[in-house]
Amino acid sequence: MWRDLAPVGRSARSGGYFRQPFTAAEGELRAWFAEQAAARGLALEADGNGTLLATWGSGDDAVLVGSHLDSVLDGGAYDGPLGVVSAFAAIDRLRGRGVVPTRPVVVAAFAEEEGSRFGVACLGSRLATGATTPDAARELRDREGVPLLDAMAAAGVEPRLGPAPWLTRVGCFVELHVEQGRDLVHRDAAVGLASEIWPHGRWRFDFTGEANHAGATRMQDRRDPMLSYAATALAAAATAGASGPRATFGRLDVAPNGTNAVPSRVTAWLDARAGSDDALEELVEEIARAGSERASGDGTALAVTPESVSGAVGFDVSLTARLARVLRPWGGPGEVPVVPSLAGHDAGVLAAAGVPTAMLFVRNPTGVSHSPAEHADLADCLAGVDALAAVLEELVA
Amino acid sequence: MWRDLAPVGRSARSGGYFRQPFTAAEGELRAWFAEQAAARGLALEADGNGTLLATWGSGDDAVLVGSHLDSVLDGGAYDGPLGVVSAFAAIDRLRGRGVVPTRPVVVAAFAEEEGSRFGVACLGSRLATGATTPDAARELRDREGVPLLDAMAAAGVEPRLGPAPWLTRVGCFVELHVEQGRDLVHRDAAVGLASEIWPHGRWRFDFTGEANHAGATRMQDRRDPMLSYAATALAAAATAGASGPRATFGRLDVAPNGTNAVPSRVTAWLDARAGSDDALEELVEEIARAGSERASGDGTALAVTPESVSGAVGFDVSLTARLARVLRPWGGPGEVPVVPSLAGHDAGVLAAAGVPTAMLFVRNPTGVSHSPAEHADLADCLAGVDALAAVLEELVA
Repeated sequence: MWRDLAPVGRSARSGGYFRQPFTAAEGELRAWFAEQAAARGLALEADGNGTLLATWGSGDDAVLVGSHLDSVLDGGAYDGPLGVVSAFAAIDRLRGRGVVPTRPVVVAAFAEEEGSRFGVACLGSRLATGATTPDAARELRDREGVPLLDAMAAAGVEPRLGPAPWLTRVGCFVELHVEQGRDLVHRDAAVGLASEIWPHGRWRFDFTGEANHAGATRMQDRRDPMLSYAATALAAAATAGASGPRATFGRLDVAPNGTNAVPSRVTAWLDARAGSDDALEELVEEIARAGSERASGDGTALAVTPESVSGAVGFDVSLTARLARVLRPWGGPGEVPVVPSLAGHDAGVLAAAGVPTAMLFVRNPTGVSHSPAEHADLADCLAGVDALAAVLEELVA
Repeated sequence: MWRDLAPVGRSARSGGYFRQPFTAAEGELRAWFAEQAAARGLALEADGNGTLLATWGSGDDAVLVGSHLDSVLDGGAYDGPLGVVSAFAAIDRLRGRGVVPTRPVVVAAFAEEEGSRFGVACLGSRLATGATTPDAARELRDREGVPLLDAMAAAGVEPRLGPAPWLTRVGCFVELHVEQGRDLVHRDAAVGLASEIWPHGRWRFDFTGEANHAGATRMQDRRDPMLSYAATALAAAATAGASGPRATFGRLDVAPNGTNAVPSRVTAWLDARAGSDDALEELVEEIARAGSERASGDGTALAVTPESVSGAVGFDVSLTARLARVLRPWGGPGEVPVVPSLAGHDAGVLAAAGVPTAMLFVRNPTGVSHSPAEHADLADCLAGVDALAAVLEELVA
């Protein structure tokens, strides 16, 4: 399965992946998912939010398992697909052992988990649970101005946005994901569990000034939004501090973006995370305050708009404790590590919607993620499949 | 003529102009130039560098007059076209007075004066004079990777890059341009002359770091090129100071430019200008030094590449003095203002190549340029035409 996926959406230049939702590359991944379901005789279902599901068995109280297939721009191979591939492989393991499930197992591939095209992370699971409304989703546009519904239709996905009927048949959700830090490396464990997801969100910072000639306009006569932005980016890093909270400006849009013109506008997206809802709010307020202060000195203006904000999510304590016992063989020398996730996941969205949810992490030797350099060792990936198979056996046998 | 040009390449949203060379919008401007030449019975010539010429009369020792038709991204209506339209209108004035020229008058529209598509400002005149070699031009690509030659061919312009035969027939060059500052406002003059062009250039700053997850990666573990860039942008403004030199970062390219990823690379273009060649070199060196120092602290790397650098250019002293006498009626209460230009122009390229050259400025009430808000009053534009007609009459009658 890994070999089939390896070339899809891969940039020859960087070695990274461009698997934005409802693009040609992601269409290949969707076709691959359908093939995998068909090859195993699993019932294939596409909800109207772009999410694909493949069901083994029938009935209610299903064990949902899976992750997503889309990537960030120039992302890694593991973030998302590892969870989907491991789910199919775990089902193969169970069947090889002759397990007859007492509950259905549903493999899911959620749409636009990264928010790399329409700006809202976990869009597929947020629509399924109602965390994002269909009305709000209909307003979403990608960077070229293409509305979500048009992009779905162009990809042959019939849109029926909104709460998903399959959700009522789900008893619990287990998402396996490559780790995005090095906690498991430090704990010498191939596999671990997630305790919680930190509050996190995205805010758009629009700095507006006055376009002018880069040569003829005296520095003192300018209203240059680039300088207001630059000071805000430095303030964000300083406010977050060395460890703990995170504040990142990774995406920019400059207008008119010409070498010999003072810009009229700089739009920057802040990604911020903190250990509590209050801490996150304070962090963003402090950055916005620093930005506005600088803008006022520069003669520019700053408007801050939240685009998606997710509060703190704790995973299901009893489910996680139960899985920790099952995972003992892959969890390293001590107890199975149970660590917080600084990244958002569909598992967090379903947990917030009241679905008993747990997350498995597979060790990442460098901790690098959202990068072509993201990696997991083959032995750890196989350990992850074994661990997930043991989890499913515990839950359905 | 102004009414014909007004809608071409105009953005309905900003009101600014997008007239990049060898695009559909610029193709309309080229067709318009050919129509204007035909309507006046002027001989039309296209050199192989994208420049158009319309000749009244024949022989050598021609008076070249004109400017350019392309714009910066989201630029104003006047920068460039005012000089071309005024040249045609001045010829109409002379003919109306029955002037029979003793020397040919050649109206020129130079290609890619702004460097907004291929990065080299005054590309048409630089190729014509040999300041840019055909080999170097063949390597140029636009932001989408389209090579210059392909773009020319797609626009129906047959490329024959290199020194232009028409240049040997030129005796002097007079470029009329909207002012890009407010010196004429302060001197209460509708029209002025340029003394010199300040040294100026463009340098590409490539900051490289390591892409990583915006949530999972601790601030202290990052190698974030965005922070190195932000500090450099602030250092550039601080180094330039309040008046005098200019240092602008107006164009950026961020990779992968995703909200939830620390960037792997930030490329920024520095536009810098100073009163002497030495001062410009020191300015850029100081900014590069500040950038490298910050990059070293951030664990990122900075590479600085000059893309086009133009030394100081003085306009022809005796030609300028002669024109100052002719321009007396439009030059305000005192002597005709003779002011330095902080912007580069084709006139500077031809002057550097040894062509006796002068420049006329038309008053700009706000000084705003390279912006949709760029403006000149109709009365001043008409004064500019009258002044240019007087100049031509002085030179050819």
